[in-house]
Amino acid sequence: MSTTKNKIQNLKNLSGTHSPSIATILREIPEIKIKIDACFLSNPYATDLFLNHFNTDLIINGNLRSVLEYYPPQNREISKGLSKILNINSSKLFIGNGAIEIIQAVIHSFSKKKICVIIPTFSSYYEFVNNDTEVIYYHLNKEDNYNLNIDDYINFIKIHKPDTIVIINPNNPTGTYIKKNEIIYILQNLTFIDNIIIDESFIHFAYENNNYDLINYYDLVNKYPNLVLIKSMSKDFGIAGIRAGYGVMNDLKVNKLLSNGYLWNSSGLSDYFFKLYSNPQFFKDYNYLRIKYINDIINFGKNLNLIKNLNTINTMANFYLLELNPKLSSFDFTIDCLIDHNIYLRDCSDKIGLDGNFIRVAARTNEENLEIFDSFKKILN
Amino acid sequence: MSTTKNKIQNLKNLSGTHSPSIATILREIPEIKIKIDACFLSNPYATDLFLNHFNTDLIINGNLRSVLEYYPPQNREISKGLSKILNINSSKLFIGNGAIEIIQAVIHSFSKKKICVIIPTFSSYYEFVNNDTEVIYYHLNKEDNYNLNIDDYINFIKIHKPDTIVIINPNNPTGTYIKKNEIIYILQNLTFIDNIIIDESFIHFAYENNNYDLINYYDLVNKYPNLVLIKSMSKDFGIAGIRAGYGVMNDLKVNKLLSNGYLWNSSGLSDYFFKLYSNPQFFKDYNYLRIKYINDIINFGKNLNLIKNLNTINTMANFYLLELNPKLSSFDFTIDCLIDHNIYLRDCSDKIGLDGNFIRVAARTNEENLEIFDSFKKILN
Repeated sequence: MSTTKNKIQNLKNLSGTHSPSIATILREIPEIKIKIDACFLSNPYATDLFLNHFNTDLIINGNLRSVLEYYPPQNREISKGLSKILNINSSKLFIGNGAIEIIQAVIHSFSKKKICVIIPTFSSYYEFVNNDTEVIYYHLNKEDNYNLNIDDYINFIKIHKPDTIVIINPNNPTGTYIKKNEIIYILQNLTFIDNIIIDESFIHFAYENNNYDLINYYDLVNKYPNLVLIKSMSKDFGIAGIRAGYGVMNDLKVNKLLSNGYLWNSSGLSDYFFKLYSNPQFFKDYNYLRIKYINDIINFGKNLNLIKNLNTINTMANFYLLELNPKLSSFDFTIDCLIDHNIYLRDCSDKIGLDGNFIRVAARTNEENLEIFDSFKKILN
Repeated sequence: MSTTKNKIQNLKNLSGTHSPSIATILREIPEIKIKIDACFLSNPYATDLFLNHFNTDLIINGNLRSVLEYYPPQNREISKGLSKILNINSSKLFIGNGAIEIIQAVIHSFSKKKICVIIPTFSSYYEFVNNDTEVIYYHLNKEDNYNLNIDDYINFIKIHKPDTIVIINPNNPTGTYIKKNEIIYILQNLTFIDNIIIDESFIHFAYENNNYDLINYYDLVNKYPNLVLIKSMSKDFGIAGIRAGYGVMNDLKVNKLLSNGYLWNSSGLSDYFFKLYSNPQFFKDYNYLRIKYINDIINFGKNLNLIKNLNTINTMANFYLLELNPKLSSFDFTIDCLIDHNIYLRDCSDKIGLDGNFIRVAARTNEENLEIFDSFKKILN
């Protein structure tokens, strides 16, 4: 068992600031069994829905070959279809090979001398900057439960004058959320910033009313030309393997990106997914499962709050940031969960801006959440 | 019928210097039927082989969900697997979301002031350059049947001193081929060039002996640190929808690309394909079909040579560049083939560096090649 632990530590060292992917762990340490992947941030019900359509449309109806064999449509062509369901002009849409490609494209192309990221955050936002770009960090405080102090943040930006700022909303790994009226307030006060990147990859899990209505910011792109929205499809639709995402931004930025690249950066399956997404019946079915999942997330949080030696941070995303008793190591806890309970968690000890023993646990299906809850109780109580 | 023709012309204008994709044409002009897609450059037998494996491994054995749901391994992880079958060090491998991503990455990251492309060529090599990079063109001559005059080319490069040069071998759209010993001669004479990009996307269809043995240049990367090989998987394996390609280059270049991007740029299906490619039995089966296809290409060329009013350029790729009688328009010929015979060709009238009425026809299955031959005869004789 200690050999397995060593092997995991080695893999972690090789993966930089990200956890080794489940594929990597299973490939390199085949003796490990993962029953619940609670590192992976996705709505599993949406994956089921997608697979049902895949089975009917591509396998039963025989369209699989054309999706795999032929070149998919070009970037602007896919934008045209997607723009209808998003209700924005396709000239403001940029289709990405996952959100990560859009993060890279926007940061490499538009960020110049100084970028401000809020920490703790998703590490690619500071890892992907060009060598000559300075990264400055705005720290979220544990005392505020990692919520953003809007006026203090605006003040910080006014003092340090970065050309690019990044806000992940809801934030990863804290799950904290900035309301739309607060986002508008930030935009109103920071019109002098060249690029305001808002990564809304977890926005489908956030809500501002009791109906859990979907929130979107697309109207703001028309008003604030410095706003860049980045959206992953991996989390809400549970299809990380397909690599699909989109960015919404000023026409000039889209034109710049497409003027010398990104011509055929979508796969046939990504094109298929975006067409499916534009189907109103699929969207209705998806939305039902989205709300079911939000309810599961809320119930999971209520249970986690009952566990001793565990501080559960409130979330508007599909995961919880959990702080362990200072006497416990987050890495050891993660490994115990993996080896003794076959539950895979995200150890956050490598996350800059987090002081303490933190882990991140994804909400999975209701049954799996209960099993995670039981395992945590066994380890901690 | 003339309305259909107008619609095609409009689509072509919107697609820039590339033909509209088959998906675009079928979506926008649904009354058009395409029976044979001879614009699409792929080995159709290899697509069959891939689909058989896909069906067994992913559908029957139930592994489809994990390929679509989870994040695929990171770039270096996929390189490790692929490096074994290619017999090169994985530190020299860069995995791309199709060759087009590697072309973009290499040109944006390494090309500086001046790039030389040989024309006619694949347009992305000059379209993707940064705004401040000058593009110079070395013209292939009709009198040489578009073969490269090696010494004249080396002399041209020595005079104009670009930092980056691009050679597609076999070249697209001419199908002309530079032998390995000639490539070595070029490399020996141009060691002062920063980046020598050789796009070998069609190399599986070229041969230098009667056994049609696969040719590869990987050993040269160890000797020439300025050499960058770019390889698409779309043509030889007939899986353009998956978006898979790789680059082989100096470790420092790979490190630079991966230091601030390209972390998760492969899809689950691309990862699956590369694993399959590393399976010796799959490779053996593929190689049998590769040689069968080369024989079809050769037979197709023998037939095309029999047609009046048509000049067939010799090829080492999986297509033929055809020059029509000067009285005929290549666009009209392409449209006649599409509407009257449901055969989709590549009109080359937008290709810079080609003077005359040229079309490009892909070799498909033997049966389809015979049907294309008959249709051409009907139109031209």
